[in-house]
Amino acid sequence: MARVGIDLEAVESQLVKSAESLYEMLDKLLPEKEGVLEDRLIEAMRYSTLSRGKRIRPFLTIEASKLFGVSMSSAQRVAAAIEFIHAFSLIHDDLPALDNDELRRGEPSCHKKFDEATAVLAGDALLAYAFEVLADSQTHQDSGVRVELVRNIAQVTGFRGMIGGQMIDMLAPHNTMGFPEIVRLQRMKTGEFFAVSCEAGAILGKAPHSLRNALRTYARNIGIAFQITDDLLDVEGNRDITGKNVQKDKAQNKATLVECLGIEEAREHAVRLARQAVEYLAPFDSRADVLRDLAEFVIIRQY
Amino acid sequence: MARVGIDLEAVESQLVKSAESLYEMLDKLLPEKEGVLEDRLIEAMRYSTLSRGKRIRPFLTIEASKLFGVSMSSAQRVAAAIEFIHAFSLIHDDLPALDNDELRRGEPSCHKKFDEATAVLAGDALLAYAFEVLADSQTHQDSGVRVELVRNIAQVTGFRGMIGGQMIDMLAPHNTMGFPEIVRLQRMKTGEFFAVSCEAGAILGKAPHSLRNALRTYARNIGIAFQITDDLLDVEGNRDITGKNVQKDKAQNKATLVECLGIEEAREHAVRLARQAVEYLAPFDSRADVLRDLAEFVIIRQY
Repeated sequence: MARVGIDLEAVESQLVKSAESLYEMLDKLLPEKEGVLEDRLIEAMRYSTLSRGKRIRPFLTIEASKLFGVSMSSAQRVAAAIEFIHAFSLIHDDLPALDNDELRRGEPSCHKKFDEATAVLAGDALLAYAFEVLADSQTHQDSGVRVELVRNIAQVTGFRGMIGGQMIDMLAPHNTMGFPEIVRLQRMKTGEFFAVSCEAGAILGKAPHSLRNALRTYARNIGIAFQITDDLLDVEGNRDITGKNVQKDKAQNKATLVECLGIEEAREHAVRLARQAVEYLAPFDSRADVLRDLAEFVIIRQY
Repeated sequence: MARVGIDLEAVESQLVKSAESLYEMLDKLLPEKEGVLEDRLIEAMRYSTLSRGKRIRPFLTIEASKLFGVSMSSAQRVAAAIEFIHAFSLIHDDLPALDNDELRRGEPSCHKKFDEATAVLAGDALLAYAFEVLADSQTHQDSGVRVELVRNIAQVTGFRGMIGGQMIDMLAPHNTMGFPEIVRLQRMKTGEFFAVSCEAGAILGKAPHSLRNALRTYARNIGIAFQITDDLLDVEGNRDITGKNVQKDKAQNKATLVECLGIEEAREHAVRLARQAVEYLAPFDSRADVLRDLAEFVIIRQY
């Protein structure tokens, strides 16, 4: 059951604290400019990863890791790799040939700040670097754990996951998508990546499959609720608060659950998903309360 | 020492045979169209990977694997992953914002055949899929081997390797590059990826580091000689034979060793690199003769 009367400010402050701590790890892992010809690439990788963001996916990794006594250093390296992949996907999605978005997290998107070629390559480099970090022995002493992280994260990133979802998003105007197709799209685009971000903590902790699956399902639901809230903010939100342009989905004729179900029913669906998500946390004690509260946060956030 | 009087036709026929056998593995590993909305992505991934190509990088993996008794199935899965990454790099390099190339392997490049958005995403998906394949337990029973492949291959793909090299290539017209800078660029763009393609066979075979390093250095030299030959073909070659547009480097003001040293000296440098490469194969018996002959092939090829 969802907890009654969650302390929204407490969740937000935990997110902020976690994001600050992750920032240090991102900053440490990212290459530094070193007076070489490719410094522009490194600058773009840093620009797009270190810009402010909610850092919800890495937050899931870190909070799930805490449930299994995983070392903070391991958890943060995996969380950073997940954020690199998220940054890669935002850079490429914003490109003129894709969503053509000039604003991201309140700042010029990567290709506006640099140029298109640099944005393509910075996204590519972040994607490759994520797997380099995951595979490095500093991430976990057990190579079986590292390789499982690589495999699972690569799978939800690729054609079956985020990238496949983005392809559908690009083609959507030319197709008629109903409720089941949109739900499948949102699982691919957002749900599965949330799922693996959270499961990663359990993989690091060598948790049994039952608990891994519980965390996956929790986070998949959270992810889709998060996506619906994003789509609601696109319809109703304020650019000054969200830090990105609004009313884009309509302009781009994107298939969203808000458009499919209407505002009220979409909001109810997101609430239902968040409630269901919390039920999957039943095997965990009060240490999972942050994750329980997060389920509320993702649906009532204004940014 | 290089062998006197190599049989060029024999090398070519081995390359063709190996490429045919690899084709089956690529075809098997690549996803099939299955009547889903993202089929266009899968079609583009297949189009760009299954088109004809010399397949020299995967050939290095397979021939090196043979030196250590690695199973053909393991060797071919890794070779396929390497070819997926190579295909990714070609798709993105050809994009209008990068080299703006409409012809690749004698056919329309990916963004011409499909569109820019599909080409960006197909490249992304191939890159992610390569790591998924490498990390899968079918690639090798030992997770330590798989994770080392992921780490080493990710490293030479990313900002320190191919992608960093492509960034320099994009910026080169705005810089003055001398011999050392161009050599560094060619190591990043081509040399290190050749090196890891060959070393991968030794990693699969759990070979000692001395032999791994010997194969790396052999292949790095081959790779740079290959790149110089590419640049010579760009100046002197025939589009009908090479399958790509020629005289591009000059038009794009690219920094090449041919431009830096002149045609004759660049050709001599390539020959020197190929000769040196063969010397690193000294620890290996006649089973490495294919690799010895390959060193000659890369510098005298016409396509």
